[in-house]
Amino acid sequence: MFVIISYDVDVKRVAKVHKVLKKYLTWTQNSVFEGEITEGKLKQCLAEISRKTGEHYDSIYIYRVENPKHIKKVVFGVEKDFESMFL
Amino acid sequence: MFVIISYDVDVKRVAKVHKVLKKYLTWTQNSVFEGEITEGKLKQCLAEISRKTGEHYDSIYIYRVENPKHIKKVVFGVEKDFESMFL
Repeated sequence: MFVIISYDVDVKRVAKVHKVLKKYLTWTQNSVFEGEITEGKLKQCLAEISRKTGEHYDSIYIYRVENPKHIKKVVFGVEKDFESMFL
Repeated sequence: MFVIISYDVDVKRVAKVHKVLKKYLTWTQNSVFEGEITEGKLKQCLAEISRKTGEHYDSIYIYRVENPKHIKKVVFGVEKDFESMFL
């Protein structure tokens, strides 16, 4: 399946959550990740995140599209990648 | 169709871009908006955004899912809404 995951967590936990998501998905922009992932890997990823996040403040939104053919990404403006952030 | 739009724009333009997107979609988290929209309204929205953004820095990512039934949203943790941000 294809997923888009965005997070909004306490600033103290941003780096930890970012690090977990980066293991499983591709970082796109700010607090947004995307990529193809299996059900098992997604569960594993969310279990790891749940150990790093707080119940009363943090939130993670997961948009699931079972068939990656059903989603199309269009970039408007500059397509950023990790390197461009440090140039 | 259902769209998820995330933006990464210069801090000087964040409020302007946020305001345009809010006219057409629902704000979810940080720099992410979502919602059902027609092709015409999406074009109109993007035209408005293009007038507010800079070509060499800003980026807008649009994920399109033609049939809203093909996308499923799961919230993990706290589901934030506009009001909760000010409580």
